[in-house]
Amino acid sequence: MVDVTLLGCGGSIPLKDRWLTSCLIRYEGKSVLIDCGEGTQIALKSVGYTFKPIDVICFTHYHADHISGLPGFLLSMGNAGRTEPLELIGPHGLARTVNSLRVIAPELPFEIKYTEISGAEDSFNVGPFVISAYKVLHAVTCYGYRIELPRAGKFDVNRALELGLPKNLWRVLQNGATVEFEGRTYLPQDVLGPDRKGVTVAYCTDSRPVERIKLLAKDADLFICEGLYGDDEKQAKTAEKCHMTYREAANLAKTAETKCLWLTHYSPAMTEPEEFLDVAREIFPETYCGFDGKTTSLKFEE
Amino acid sequence: MVDVTLLGCGGSIPLKDRWLTSCLIRYEGKSVLIDCGEGTQIALKSVGYTFKPIDVICFTHYHADHISGLPGFLLSMGNAGRTEPLELIGPHGLARTVNSLRVIAPELPFEIKYTEISGAEDSFNVGPFVISAYKVLHAVTCYGYRIELPRAGKFDVNRALELGLPKNLWRVLQNGATVEFEGRTYLPQDVLGPDRKGVTVAYCTDSRPVERIKLLAKDADLFICEGLYGDDEKQAKTAEKCHMTYREAANLAKTAETKCLWLTHYSPAMTEPEEFLDVAREIFPETYCGFDGKTTSLKFEE
Repeated sequence: MVDVTLLGCGGSIPLKDRWLTSCLIRYEGKSVLIDCGEGTQIALKSVGYTFKPIDVICFTHYHADHISGLPGFLLSMGNAGRTEPLELIGPHGLARTVNSLRVIAPELPFEIKYTEISGAEDSFNVGPFVISAYKVLHAVTCYGYRIELPRAGKFDVNRALELGLPKNLWRVLQNGATVEFEGRTYLPQDVLGPDRKGVTVAYCTDSRPVERIKLLAKDADLFICEGLYGDDEKQAKTAEKCHMTYREAANLAKTAETKCLWLTHYSPAMTEPEEFLDVAREIFPETYCGFDGKTTSLKFEE
Repeated sequence: MVDVTLLGCGGSIPLKDRWLTSCLIRYEGKSVLIDCGEGTQIALKSVGYTFKPIDVICFTHYHADHISGLPGFLLSMGNAGRTEPLELIGPHGLARTVNSLRVIAPELPFEIKYTEISGAEDSFNVGPFVISAYKVLHAVTCYGYRIELPRAGKFDVNRALELGLPKNLWRVLQNGATVEFEGRTYLPQDVLGPDRKGVTVAYCTDSRPVERIKLLAKDADLFICEGLYGDDEKQAKTAEKCHMTYREAANLAKTAETKCLWLTHYSPAMTEPEEFLDVAREIFPETYCGFDGKTTSLKFEE
């Protein structure tokens, strides 16, 4: 089961009842955080989570509302006793930006590893997560993320018995490793069926609705996408600022054949995001308005 | 009337029900903000204030909980249409620290003026405020602030009439300017009685209770002082971290003959600050626990 929590759903400015957009994806004690604006550390604690299991923070871009909470977040991670290295992934300029912000968090009890994305698409393995970054279209270099939890094929007991493999090696192969037994090498595919469908979460904020987002979100179990404004009358203003409306997000969700769409990154001027939900639902019925702390558990298909 | 609002009362980490310690002092449409940790912009809006009238932000020091909210605060000031220059005052390293944080807020529609404090005591005039900085004792260079609203003497109508000064010049002299009339120069003191008592707010967080704080707080109408812990059993731990307990703050308030003490900058571990209030009140009865949004209006004495 993969737990997804939208920690905040605001864009631009944190409000007293709306944290800035960020998202936590948890699986078997490992977590990915996407974006970390001012207040994200409070939003995280508000839903009862701790800093400890966060393995990686991915940044879409370096506008303040997506990274301004990082110095405090890192310090709180340190206060919570973290010593394991932390991985950061983001567009070119990551190390420079984070090191600049660390003027007020110079000493941390853990190492930071920087991975800067290059090109239009890039992919990284972090623990159980396959994290793919897709360049989108904003005022500055910005990436959307596709987080996949792949799932190996079913273990074929009969095949393992036929091969005469002892039971203590079954789990090793099941976990994707190669084993040597009686002078022969066995690969996971020798005892596993075809790969099964995994779980995929797609995340895109701060972009115009460019083609690449359809790849990013293709067949995703959950697509979290910005809807800066719901009102169609704000279309021109939204486009001018290089953002997306509800209508545009819903069209992407439909074309990419995602299972479910959560809207987020609302303009501070939009006080009632639900007011325009029907605009999106007419295009893509499985659209829901995100809110701070909105959580779902995505199951692997049987 | 001088309005003082404690925007937050927390130390170290912002909590969902406790903003980081910062303070706003307002007088006749002008404001001083002291410290700006993560979330201060939300705390400011929560009490119904706007960014517009803030003329100066004073920093006690550059630990993250006192400055981490600055990039977002500056951007929100810009979004609110500010074009007037903003003055920042703080210990040595101010421009370097702020410029480093501004990696995520590089473009602002207003100028920032930096004033770096030098020496053990320094003083600045900003609009109606006389801002005096006093070096205190923390793990890094840290200053407390004494904010004074001086008050000129009463206008002596009989004296002005005796001097034959026309009424249109009275207000000019009353406002502290010099005037020329019929070939003679008149000074404010020619028509004003002796200076009257002004209003003074003293502010000190993140320090051991050193002697200089008694000067900083001398006769203040309101002394806002950190009380990291109220429990005397935490005395050693508090001293080790270069902070103050309730008891130490109360002793300073008493010795400095302040009128009133507000405690602030509570440890996140202290969930009920009121629990230990009696410890301070036994020493200094006019002690109150600060809380987010706590406000008072200080009147000039008649």
